[in-house]
Amino acid sequence: MLERYLPILAWLPHYNSRLFGADLLAGIIVTVMVIPQSLAYAILAGLPAVVGLYASILPLLAYALFGTSRTLAVGPVAILALMTGAALSGIASPGSEIYLEAAMVLALLSGLMLTAMGLMKLGFFANFLSHPVISGFLTASGLLIAASQAANLLGVSGSGFTVVELASNLFANVSETHWPTLAIGTGCLIFLVVMRRHGKEALCRLGLGESAAALLAKAGPVFAVVVTTLLTWHFKLVDAGVAVVGDIPKGLPPFTFPTPELPLWRELLVPALLISVVGFVESVSMGQMLAAKRRERIFPNQELIGLGGANIAAAISSGMPVTGGLSRTVINFDAGAQTPAAGGFAALGIGLVTVALTPLLYYLPIATLAATITVSILTLVDIQMIRQTWRYSRSDFAAMAVTIALTLVEGVEAGIIAGVTLSIGMFLYRTSRPHSALVGRVPGTEHFRNVARHEVESASHVALLRIDESLYFANARYLEDTVYNLVASRPEIEHVVLICSAVNLIDASALESLDAINARLKDSNVTLHLAEVKGPVMDQLKNSDFLDDLTGRVFLSTYAAWSELKQSRE
Amino acid sequence: MLERYLPILAWLPHYNSRLFGADLLAGIIVTVMVIPQSLAYAILAGLPAVVGLYASILPLLAYALFGTSRTLAVGPVAILALMTGAALSGIASPGSEIYLEAAMVLALLSGLMLTAMGLMKLGFFANFLSHPVISGFLTASGLLIAASQAANLLGVSGSGFTVVELASNLFANVSETHWPTLAIGTGCLIFLVVMRRHGKEALCRLGLGESAAALLAKAGPVFAVVVTTLLTWHFKLVDAGVAVVGDIPKGLPPFTFPTPELPLWRELLVPALLISVVGFVESVSMGQMLAAKRRERIFPNQELIGLGGANIAAAISSGMPVTGGLSRTVINFDAGAQTPAAGGFAALGIGLVTVALTPLLYYLPIATLAATITVSILTLVDIQMIRQTWRYSRSDFAAMAVTIALTLVEGVEAGIIAGVTLSIGMFLYRTSRPHSALVGRVPGTEHFRNVARHEVESASHVALLRIDESLYFANARYLEDTVYNLVASRPEIEHVVLICSAVNLIDASALESLDAINARLKDSNVTLHLAEVKGPVMDQLKNSDFLDDLTGRVFLSTYAAWSELKQSRE
Repeated sequence: MLERYLPILAWLPHYNSRLFGADLLAGIIVTVMVIPQSLAYAILAGLPAVVGLYASILPLLAYALFGTSRTLAVGPVAILALMTGAALSGIASPGSEIYLEAAMVLALLSGLMLTAMGLMKLGFFANFLSHPVISGFLTASGLLIAASQAANLLGVSGSGFTVVELASNLFANVSETHWPTLAIGTGCLIFLVVMRRHGKEALCRLGLGESAAALLAKAGPVFAVVVTTLLTWHFKLVDAGVAVVGDIPKGLPPFTFPTPELPLWRELLVPALLISVVGFVESVSMGQMLAAKRRERIFPNQELIGLGGANIAAAISSGMPVTGGLSRTVINFDAGAQTPAAGGFAALGIGLVTVALTPLLYYLPIATLAATITVSILTLVDIQMIRQTWRYSRSDFAAMAVTIALTLVEGVEAGIIAGVTLSIGMFLYRTSRPHSALVGRVPGTEHFRNVARHEVESASHVALLRIDESLYFANARYLEDTVYNLVASRPEIEHVVLICSAVNLIDASALESLDAINARLKDSNVTLHLAEVKGPVMDQLKNSDFLDDLTGRVFLSTYAAWSELKQSRE
Repeated sequence: MLERYLPILAWLPHYNSRLFGADLLAGIIVTVMVIPQSLAYAILAGLPAVVGLYASILPLLAYALFGTSRTLAVGPVAILALMTGAALSGIASPGSEIYLEAAMVLALLSGLMLTAMGLMKLGFFANFLSHPVISGFLTASGLLIAASQAANLLGVSGSGFTVVELASNLFANVSETHWPTLAIGTGCLIFLVVMRRHGKEALCRLGLGESAAALLAKAGPVFAVVVTTLLTWHFKLVDAGVAVVGDIPKGLPPFTFPTPELPLWRELLVPALLISVVGFVESVSMGQMLAAKRRERIFPNQELIGLGGANIAAAISSGMPVTGGLSRTVINFDAGAQTPAAGGFAALGIGLVTVALTPLLYYLPIATLAATITVSILTLVDIQMIRQTWRYSRSDFAAMAVTIALTLVEGVEAGIIAGVTLSIGMFLYRTSRPHSALVGRVPGTEHFRNVARHEVESASHVALLRIDESLYFANARYLEDTVYNLVASRPEIEHVVLICSAVNLIDASALESLDAINARLKDSNVTLHLAEVKGPVMDQLKNSDFLDDLTGRVFLSTYAAWSELKQSRE
């Protein structure tokens, strides 16, 4: 029981020096690798760079205590940074006290929501984000983030959270392009793209082992950071106008607790909910993928608690919303992390950097960070998936297209809300006009198939009608119309058999419709039967008067109904 | 084509003197009967009594042109009056210019929405109001309306749109009860209840024919109006403080057009939508019931246009929102109306009354109207339905209970929105955790049933898993868990057959899950098969790579899969 809510108890007692060695190495590697992205995502959210570091210390420890994935690495991630920035931009101006405070409130609310959802076992909520909506959202967010970095690469000002804002700001300022900044940014971009595409291969050819080469290729951003920082320092590029990270306060993150200011909290409720759900989906799908690789399991409801704890930890240590990050988790996994202790070691490492080494980051150019964000974010843009979805299902594609379009034009919140609403709406619409088929017997078998698609036997006085949907309020009237039209168009029908093999539910509204159908068919001397009613549905029907009033019978199988009724012609 | 959008063309060319006679009589009877309720519902909505008359003239003519029901009578109805009052009470104080104007805007918006929904064939929208939600809403609204009339019966002031408001107002003023008013009100109440319960029977015993007795029993309100008006006039009860209808301006309704005032219109959008949908549901379900009795048909999408036209007509003639009214339609039907012309004659009749006879209504006591509303509205309270729903389905009952509770406590809008949201939410939740069953062969047949419920044959190396739901984003992950748990708990399984007889849809998210299941089972040397995949689903699967990657086969029937696989054991 205790182990369920504190997964750390499952692995800590069996901890040994072999695991320690592996985790420590992974922790050191993660420390080095995630510093640039932590700074970058804080800046993307409109926050001081150091907030990214703060959010990479305590949250990792909290997740190590409560999380169930052995290899997930939490921290600031690009999508949540974008969503945080979009949510806060309507409330305060970046750099102000309130803006910082609001970021913590957002983390706190999100943490409380995630924890509450975990305790109430509401992890299934995330299932209502369909794959097409998620991948559409990630693609559009990726494009937005890349576009938002264009200004940093050009060395001009120009922020925004929709393509319209970004394009107009960029267009207004493009004439002031700062060439040294652009040179650094473009250089980094090209280097990073080449490293990503050919780095591993090239390093292998230089004689490195495969796994070392893979890891080193991933260190491209670290290399870019070190080189451009040294260049900027040596050539005094700050005087030439290259924007750098600048002063970062030394020391551990200050303990904070957001003051409960009701109007602000209320305004952040919806963004916090969206951040929670998106963060959870991103984290848990990655966690599941990696757990499957090592034949481990993760528990979505406990994951909610783990991520909730991480966000609450972020809120009380001057951080920002966090979740399991794609790139930092992959680095952790590839570096050989065995238990959440690796995350703990990374937290210690980043803590050490924050305490002692922030002056080294002074000359780090913003353009370098922009290049690392741009390259890593474009992996989210999944054109392949868009094409596949178009091919497979037009309605899934529609949900995806609306999500992409609204995310780009109206921003992240509008995009995801529209996507979810549309996909639920389309599902409901589809179930409200169910497919149904008149079926006949496949000759020589007891199997029945659609008369329009297969060569089957049928009898003109028996209508075997298969309803391909649960019967509930949204399609109850449609069912009535279907049956009435059938009987009206074929006056020779004496028996209607509703085949319920696909009916998983008959709700109170549908029961009334069945009653009405039964009564109306009775008036026309047509008998109504049911066949293949499932156990749970039958149990429920027994709680009503319907079975007593039914003019016909309930057959176990379509074949039984057919055998009996085909001979019944008077 | 033209006939479809102007149903009047279907019957007008065949109009003859027999139909004319029947319709004229029905029109006269309706005129007399609906005047009291028209006045009463306008007062219920907080509007001047005459607005109820105005809304019973032009709208009837518009519906006669565009509506498809032969017997439906439109006009102000109790529920819409309550909803109108609730919507306007937040905007202006009753009696003010803006209040009147807002009522017309509400009718106009509702008319435009209904017409637009009709033209876009969105009649199915109404299906999302489930029976339990509708009957819960009607029950609670009936109680609210009855409670709101208590003040009028007591002769005290005290309005409100929730039980809390009503009870506190009533409690504050009950000490000022006006006894003559109470006497009139109680007298009418008792008379009307007795007439409703025993009137027909008593009149039959007095020697009247059955249908005449039925009609005359329904004229109870008219009789009460005439008698109490005469009493009030003769005994000068106005001087004693009995509230009466008072001056009603003589003349035809003034032509109006609501000025387009954007903030007001925007504020009324949601109430107008709710009024449209509720009015449509009330009207169309009654229309369908009556049409079935005479073997006629109504067309829901054209009904939307008919009701839309009626509301637009109400808006431009100083009226209020209207729909097909229960009691006035029943009167029209019973009086023998044959075509919508009966509505036209009623419109002429009410127009005549408005032009010439309004002074006769001066001494009509408000308490009499309150008594007629109270008696007619309590038929909406359907305790029987509540009990049946409880017995049949706890989740339907939950939706109903929430609708009732919120309507009473928070008002009509909150009630209906919560009911609809909850019933959709519960449906989605249910489909997100689908029932599934391992099935085996019913001995000697080709029929397969749940191993847990029936005596069936099965083989330990073949798992026949029937999934009782369409596969879509909300349950895709659940399906993965189900299959993985099954395979993990029974290592002897070599074949998993997903029986898709109840799967009416596989969306893009579920397709990804199937891909994942297929890949993961392959790793464990388990073969995945499908059986009984429906035509439309199969067509769609062919647009993906899934069938190429599938480790097993797609069988036409479960029996085919079983026959083949049970011998496959190595």
